[in-house]
Amino acid sequence: MLTRRSPALLLAVAALAACAKPETPEQAATRMQAESDAVRPAIEAGNASYVRYFNAGQADSLAALHTENTHVMPPNGPAVHGRDGVRELMTGFFQQAPSSQLTIRVEDVAANGPMAVDRGRWSFTPQAGTPMPADSGKYLVHWHRQADGSWQIQDDIWNSDVPLPPPPPARRR
Amino acid sequence: MLTRRSPALLLAVAALAACAKPETPEQAATRMQAESDAVRPAIEAGNASYVRYFNAGQADSLAALHTENTHVMPPNGPAVHGRDGVRELMTGFFQQAPSSQLTIRVEDVAANGPMAVDRGRWSFTPQAGTPMPADSGKYLVHWHRQADGSWQIQDDIWNSDVPLPPPPPARRR
Repeated sequence: MLTRRSPALLLAVAALAACAKPETPEQAATRMQAESDAVRPAIEAGNASYVRYFNAGQADSLAALHTENTHVMPPNGPAVHGRDGVRELMTGFFQQAPSSQLTIRVEDVAANGPMAVDRGRWSFTPQAGTPMPADSGKYLVHWHRQADGSWQIQDDIWNSDVPLPPPPPARRR
Repeated sequence: MLTRRSPALLLAVAALAACAKPETPEQAATRMQAESDAVRPAIEAGNASYVRYFNAGQADSLAALHTENTHVMPPNGPAVHGRDGVRELMTGFFQQAPSSQLTIRVEDVAANGPMAVDRGRWSFTPQAGTPMPADSGKYLVHWHRQADGSWQIQDDIWNSDVPLPPPPPARRR
């Protein structure tokens, strides 16, 4: 039978059951799957912006997709740090490979609160007539949700599927 | 003045204040920094195990550090999926580069509950006398805490700092 005390007690029990007790791994997995599904459109949109800015050669706009403390790790060169580092990296890249085209395909998003990891594939097509070869491969991006709700790139690394050329044969002098 | 109803009410209010209300971004940042610091030793230990197994050429033990659904993305080759994929990748690598030595240096760990991202550097020293060159670069690993509390590798990607060799000059026929 309900007493006058019950509503507050029920509220306390419900609140404690819901969250004062830590989640079981199964509960966490279910919640994180729901969060990952909910976050995926925002991550897809972030990648679409990345591709749009890349294909327009806009290093400033690309830099602004990153956190202030970002780490971007291109293959076969040093990592860069911060938005200035990204701007410099991309400006150099666009000088070397103007009017090239990038595509990105998200394969998986895993999210937990303000943290998300995005795994996928990229492909790169240089402007016709340049010596740079076409290239494609995989990437992993760590996104962080900002206080304003936007997602920014905290860590970005990618590499190519294309095998390295064999080392040149040793020359005799 | 406390009434007979107060303890349950206080409990309800405390429980709701503590967790039914979502964290502010600042509260989340503070909590996640504490979690990241707390988790770092386990991630460091996971990397130490990785290095130990790598340097002993133990593909089975390396595979067991990964989740069942892992994605491992080596540079200049295709990604592999699952523990069998890792075992096959590493077995092939050890045949090509036996008795090579790996080091890993963790630079940053970001964690939120069962999800962690580990960024760092690696360096690789082949066995003396082999044609394979020394190499070094950066990596990003997405770890997932399992129900038993252990951390396993969900996604792993790395690349080299070493610039690609210039393309060979075109030959005239």
